[in-house]
Amino acid sequence: MKVLIVHAHPEPQSFTASMQRHAVETLQGQGHEVMVSDLYAMNWNPVASAADFGTRKNNDYLVYALEQRENVAAGTIGPDIRAELDKLLACDLIIFSFPLFWCSVPAIMKGWMDRVLVSGKVYGGQRFYDRGGMRGKRAMLAYTCGGRDFMFDAEGVHGEMDLMLRHVLRGTLGYAGFEVLPSFVAYHVPYVKPAEREAMLGRYGDYLTKLDQLEPLSFPSLDDFDAEMYPRVRTPQMTEQD
Amino acid sequence: MKVLIVHAHPEPQSFTASMQRHAVETLQGQGHEVMVSDLYAMNWNPVASAADFGTRKNNDYLVYALEQRENVAAGTIGPDIRAELDKLLACDLIIFSFPLFWCSVPAIMKGWMDRVLVSGKVYGGQRFYDRGGMRGKRAMLAYTCGGRDFMFDAEGVHGEMDLMLRHVLRGTLGYAGFEVLPSFVAYHVPYVKPAEREAMLGRYGDYLTKLDQLEPLSFPSLDDFDAEMYPRVRTPQMTEQD
Repeated sequence: MKVLIVHAHPEPQSFTASMQRHAVETLQGQGHEVMVSDLYAMNWNPVASAADFGTRKNNDYLVYALEQRENVAAGTIGPDIRAELDKLLACDLIIFSFPLFWCSVPAIMKGWMDRVLVSGKVYGGQRFYDRGGMRGKRAMLAYTCGGRDFMFDAEGVHGEMDLMLRHVLRGTLGYAGFEVLPSFVAYHVPYVKPAEREAMLGRYGDYLTKLDQLEPLSFPSLDDFDAEMYPRVRTPQMTEQD
Repeated sequence: MKVLIVHAHPEPQSFTASMQRHAVETLQGQGHEVMVSDLYAMNWNPVASAADFGTRKNNDYLVYALEQRENVAAGTIGPDIRAELDKLLACDLIIFSFPLFWCSVPAIMKGWMDRVLVSGKVYGGQRFYDRGGMRGKRAMLAYTCGGRDFMFDAEGVHGEMDLMLRHVLRGTLGYAGFEVLPSFVAYHVPYVKPAEREAMLGRYGDYLTKLDQLEPLSFPSLDDFDAEMYPRVRTPQMTEQD
């Protein structure tokens, strides 16, 4: 398969960067084709703005999603966005590789999502969740964090990690139609010894070789909602007692 | 009181921008002092990097939070960050004004959080939630969205909006110690008629005059966790029956 790794960390020697390189080696070792977008190295511009558009449907008032649709169709979307969009459309699996900043992705990566996940291709109209534009592709997060795993349990001080990441897992990747795999999380990274870091790298490599065995996250089906997006009232099943 | 509005929208004529201006007028009309950080107008740099630091504790390896602490203490943090940090430390209430991008804040605003909510002042060590550095200040989100309100109910297609925003409400603002007020959300904005937009502005103005009547969101107390952040086992109360 073709894999796109979107990576963002301000320190090239970081453990997160080691994870990214280990992913490339592991996946290539399995015969997969791997593309990497290293956002800090690319000096990626994260700011969605009018400068992203070579032409304008409406010069007087910017509706960002509308101009995305028009400019992608016309071939006038910014070349940095177009290059990333081509990688996205070509891949079978996308991995987001990052350190957790404020229970989310770093701003430079949020700006990749804001600018590259374009209306018209990725979503639009009522194409989202199981009708989203990215249907047939898989996505996963691979991230590092300073906290300990038990702090992100249901009973932990921060509650479940997947709830903190819900805006990405469900609101972004699930919405876009990706099959979202469970995240690989490396906890307590700044505080663990080199041997434990090596062990975490090993576990990450193993994880990447067994993606097909993972149970994807579950999101709504639009079949359960009507055209106005109200929940469909299910007709109760008649039984012999009725 | 002193209010800081951090605003981000790529279109200055947007309804979100009207809301921001209406907030300034309403709050000033009540005698409050209002500061505005209009991130697009300021050409705010959202990318956390080594360039944020005038000096380095460690020149060979960047630990962003560590350098934040050191550079704020030494007075060598980037001047754009310092200016925002001064506004933040001066304010009693901070309002984030934005359009929802991928169930979160736009990247330019995420980068304000990444760079301005500095370790050492805002959080650090075990100072978070009810021990966070922003204790005594209030925060709220005021945002616009294309979806309809019922789509973000518990039974709606996207589930509860506050769960989508959990990374900001709890993971960022609650964590930092702010008292977090319920968000003001303007739904379905691109599709509603001018009269309804006027009505929404009116409701937002009313909301801002009644902030003291709002029930803040509830977050964990660190009193319920031990020094290792494991949940404390509560001693059962003895009763006469025991």
